[in-house]
Amino acid sequence: MAEDCLFCKIVNRQIPSEFLYEDENFVVIKDINPHAPVHLLILPKHHIRSINDMEKQDSELVGNMFLVAKQMAKEQGVNESGYKVGFNVEKGGGQVIFHLHLHLLGGWEK
Amino acid sequence: MAEDCLFCKIVNRQIPSEFLYEDENFVVIKDINPHAPVHLLILPKHHIRSINDMEKQDSELVGNMFLVAKQMAKEQGVNESGYKVGFNVEKGGGQVIFHLHLHLLGGWEK
Repeated sequence: MAEDCLFCKIVNRQIPSEFLYEDENFVVIKDINPHAPVHLLILPKHHIRSINDMEKQDSELVGNMFLVAKQMAKEQGVNESGYKVGFNVEKGGGQVIFHLHLHLLGGWEK
Repeated sequence: MAEDCLFCKIVNRQIPSEFLYEDENFVVIKDINPHAPVHLLILPKHHIRSINDMEKQDSELVGNMFLVAKQMAKEQGVNESGYKVGFNVEKGGGQVIFHLHLHLLGGWEK
């Protein structure tokens, strides 16, 4: 756990937050400033600052975030209509919280 | 290899394309319709239709795509200025070619 990390405090339940999903390695929350009708964040419990700080041993963890995303897209009913899943990296890439988090966006009107 | 898959033909060199990077598992090409000054596509040589078709055994491969992305961001000089890395899933999510590919976008003016 990193000190003064908002997402570490959320995954460790020091700051209350609604979890749409939780397992040993991940939690899923809603983005508080949604950019799509469905906008979720998949957070690893393990603190990794950003994709720029990802190491070889993190590959399976990062890959598993997409299995969670796939499952959440289905649960949210956007798996067939389509969605976007991605990371913002560094400030210029749109990253605001420096604890790795995968954005899942979908549910736009057709 | 999937029949009639454009990206299978590219990774197998049946259709000529400039590779910015190649290893045993991946190739990197430029997006022919760029949406940012730097817009690369990281393609696995193994055919996976989309994130919706990803299975548990694909996790490390998918995670490794982000190690390639991290390296390419550095080579393109956008690792510090910031970038976005993500997948479009299904037509409504913006997916056009149904062979998994990771978009890397960056290099916007500050």
